[in-house]
Amino acid sequence: MFFNSSINKKIYYEIHGQGNPVILLNGIMMSTASWKPFLPALSKTCKVILVDLLDMGQSDNMADREQYVQPLQADILSEFVDHLGLERVSIMGISYGGEVAIEFACKYPQKLAKLMLFNTAAYTSDRLWASGEGWNAVGETLNGEAYYAVTIPYFYSVKFFDEHKEWMDGRKQVLSTLFSSFDFQDRMRRLVLSTKDYDYRDRLCEIKAPTLILGCLADTIIPIKDQQYLHEHIKGSHFVVIPDAGHCSMLEKPEIFVTLISGFVNITEDINI
Amino acid sequence: MFFNSSINKKIYYEIHGQGNPVILLNGIMMSTASWKPFLPALSKTCKVILVDLLDMGQSDNMADREQYVQPLQADILSEFVDHLGLERVSIMGISYGGEVAIEFACKYPQKLAKLMLFNTAAYTSDRLWASGEGWNAVGETLNGEAYYAVTIPYFYSVKFFDEHKEWMDGRKQVLSTLFSSFDFQDRMRRLVLSTKDYDYRDRLCEIKAPTLILGCLADTIIPIKDQQYLHEHIKGSHFVVIPDAGHCSMLEKPEIFVTLISGFVNITEDINI
Amino acid sequence: MFFNSSINKKIYYEIHGQGNPVILLNGIMMSTASWKPFLPALSKTCKVILVDLLDMGQSDNMADREQYVQPLQADILSEFVDHLGLERVSIMGISYGGEVAIEFACKYPQKLAKLMLFNTAAYTSDRLWASGEGWNAVGETLNGEAYYAVTIPYFYSVKFFDEHKEWMDGRKQVLSTLFSSFDFQDRMRRLVLSTKDYDYRDRLCEIKAPTLILGCLADTIIPIKDQQYLHEHIKGSHFVVIPDAGHCSMLEKPEIFVTLISGFVNITEDINI
Amino acid sequence: MFFNSSINKKIYYEIHGQGNPVILLNGIMMSTASWKPFLPALSKTCKVILVDLLDMGQSDNMADREQYVQPLQADILSEFVDHLGLERVSIMGISYGGEVAIEFACKYPQKLAKLMLFNTAAYTSDRLWASGEGWNAVGETLNGEAYYAVTIPYFYSVKFFDEHKEWMDGRKQVLSTLFSSFDFQDRMRRLVLSTKDYDYRDRLCEIKAPTLILGCLADTIIPIKDQQYLHEHIKGSHFVVIPDAGHCSMLEKPEIFVTLISGFVNITEDINI
Repeated sequence: MFFNSSINKKIYYEIHGQGNPVILLNGIMMSTASWKPFLPALSKTCKVILVDLLDMGQSDNMADREQYVQPLQADILSEFVDHLGLERVSIMGISYGGEVAIEFACKYPQKLAKLMLFNTAAYTSDRLWASGEGWNAVGETLNGEAYYAVTIPYFYSVKFFDEHKEWMDGRKQVLSTLFSSFDFQDRMRRLVLSTKDYDYRDRLCEIKAPTLILGCLADTIIPIKDQQYLHEHIKGSHFVVIPDAGHCSMLEKPEIFVTLISGFVNITEDINI
Repeated sequence: MFFNSSINKKIYYEIHGQGNPVILLNGIMMSTASWKPFLPALSKTCKVILVDLLDMGQSDNMADREQYVQPLQADILSEFVDHLGLERVSIMGISYGGEVAIEFACKYPQKLAKLMLFNTAAYTSDRLWASGEGWNAVGETLNGEAYYAVTIPYFYSVKFFDEHKEWMDGRKQVLSTLFSSFDFQDRMRRLVLSTKDYDYRDRLCEIKAPTLILGCLADTIIPIKDQQYLHEHIKGSHFVVIPDAGHCSMLEKPEIFVTLISGFVNITEDINI
Repeated sequence: MFFNSSINKKIYYEIHGQGNPVILLNGIMMSTASWKPFLPALSKTCKVILVDLLDMGQSDNMADREQYVQPLQADILSEFVDHLGLERVSIMGISYGGEVAIEFACKYPQKLAKLMLFNTAAYTSDRLWASGEGWNAVGETLNGEAYYAVTIPYFYSVKFFDEHKEWMDGRKQVLSTLFSSFDFQDRMRRLVLSTKDYDYRDRLCEIKAPTLILGCLADTIIPIKDQQYLHEHIKGSHFVVIPDAGHCSMLEKPEIFVTLISGFVNITEDINI
Repeated sequence: MFFNSSINKKIYYEIHGQGNPVILLNGIMMSTASWKPFLPALSKTCKVILVDLLDMGQSDNMADREQYVQPLQADILSEFVDHLGLERVSIMGISYGGEVAIEFACKYPQKLAKLMLFNTAAYTSDRLWASGEGWNAVGETLNGEAYYAVTIPYFYSVKFFDEHKEWMDGRKQVLSTLFSSFDFQDRMRRLVLSTKDYDYRDRLCEIKAPTLILGCLADTIIPIKDQQYLHEHIKGSHFVVIPDAGHCSMLEKPEIFVTLISGFVNITEDINI
């Protein structure tokens, strides 16, 4: 379904299942379609809300506003929550989606039930930005295979990559084609640029919602030190680590992913030891 | 409520809430009463079944059978599952309870839906046994304060122990009294002895139930290497780590504890990426 | 050899080899004799200076001054350095010895060439203190086997303890006898008490000497978080971790121990990348 | 100086200082010149031998033998050791250099005194190979800035990269120019190709030399699991970890680097606890 945002961009979304509502926010190369394998399990215990942010999936692109900044996504998200008629909603964001979730948590705290930050950083480090420039430089050539080779291997743990050779080969074929398209690279470039000045280190203390943080020891894109930082600065936050997984934790460890979201969203009573 | 086992020992148990059934198996110093703070949250999403194993809490003691071995607990557990009229049940065991859960998983696989092993080892290491002998040597003196001081500090992370000074002081008072009682020490001694030959390293490969393993970086009683070992030898198992917590993970991180149990027990659909 | 300190206590010491001088400061249950196996290798590249602090090994006991505090050891150490006629010396301290080294570094910075802190904490945590009280409570009974069982297993990693069964059995025999002696326990009790108020967290910033910090992932007495803390608060310090070892890192990994001391003491030129 | 190898390629080398001899083997983008900052400190305690392998630095390129494999480098190295008139030599290899060192250790064990493997893998994983293909694809374009951006950020920890902004900017300028040269990319391409079938997992058990392994928690090129693997399969090997550093450990932590090499090379006596 589509929702029309106030800046006149159409936003695509889907709703699956019943229960406590939770929005899943995509990482930078993902779309609502990426969550399909998780829906049978997750929609049994939660109302799962998928949404393509600007420049993602089936939502409008921002070709007319080259230089938007990431917090704009949080504003659109707030309108979207209102549109759904929800007073409060839980949000799980992974990577780029986690950054938008942090911005939402700071700017619209009253609309947030619970916050889940998976493989997320509190700011765009110089190192992350430098590699983002590399992605964009290669993306510009529309050489999909080269783009695949300088990005995707870093998104997975060696263990997963090597143990799922056939699956990775399938991804390579599909993604190399996608990565050769001008439309994908044009959107991707803007999404990367939108993160340039992202830095919420000083504002994490404002977050009051119960927060669950997931880090993965083999995450080479946003290393676990970033999630450790979130944990130390978001008061009362809970921190869980997957030792085996890389940046795409949801694909490497889908059962843990669903366990954490379903379990955390459905805690409705305080626990006082 | 009580259930009469075939060896003519009364077993105490409680049932709370509705949903997919999960038995919580106590650690060695715990009883069904230890789970009270978790019931409001957990019983909203699961049918929570608490049980005192032999020599624990309100169940009968084994003073007449000095030399029983731990697998006996799994046999009693199997009778108990039948008594409840359950075909299959999920089991979460922590520490001693996890060892019983492993024994149950190997001997009664058809009765097990899902397995959760938290802060659990695959075998009693020489080091663990050596420190167990220390507990029993001090326990014999019925000096509750000394017993507290040579056991409890090792059960918690420095972070938790130091940040919950008042709470720990309360524990010290309550536990020092408990630890001075002959009945407690008599049961405790037998429980420790029952673990002496525990070694399921060669049988972990038999476990077929979906398994979630929790380890804690600051666990000094059963270090995280033990859970790493379980993960590497139980095929398809899922492994999650809490960086901050010690051996009493349930008390240090109750929200994560409930998240994991509730989330994992309620996955009823396969996830195929 | 002996040196007479200003408080009229005799201090035992030994000097081995030639080269840049380094003092090795014992952990709480150690003495100069503990370093014997390291001397052939270490004395080839350094002038190794061993010393028994007050209440240790062959030095005088403090039975007449029940309530001394740990910084007194640093004062004695300073006199000792003067006595040797050394302007500056490098110091490696492990555990208790590391605490004395920190005190020395803060109070006598001009006498310190390089600082090595192995398995050392910046302060006595409530948890560490609670377990120290346990040691003393059991020590008072002069039951050497019980004392062994409530202390030594925690000083080693499971891996080392289980893989060196025969060696550990030998230690058990020797140490159980030692731990049954009133003299040992009397000294030990005072040494433990002397650490009660140890807290140099606010003074670590004063340390200017090049500092190397060693932590061990399986250290259950002074967990690695403590060494992480030292590293974060001693400006410019270098931090190395042994994943396999426990608190007695020198015995579990003697080659790494000698590598680090010999290598660090003998860096005499700046390295500017 | 130059040495003429049997395959008629000139090999450049340098010798600095006196003491136990140690060869430092470059990583894939390095040359003998990269070690300049380490010479003042390291040459005080060791005889430091630098060498450019084939297709590196001032040594000949392999433009006439497009398809050589990495073990050829070990053969050249063996000739070089003979040329120097050394019976046995210690070798420290980092990354690509570590792979050559492993090959040397297996094929020429009698010439090896001690082995140091820093940031090294036992085999080229599919993931590593996939990213190597990415490097070569971008290298072919001779776009030095793009090549810098898709390689260098992954070689450093976020901490180092962000805290040494000015230094990294300097590297960017120098390296972008270097990376635009056909000669560099031509050599680099062959070096990458030479690693394709590298897999010594089954032969690690042959290594008998005392071995020191260094891993870094923030190494995203060759993650620490690889070094853990080396440690578990090279009998008696010693394993040390730097928690803060990335793949270029020598540049991020030069003092630790020199400490480890100098200390380990100069242990000339056994240590028997």
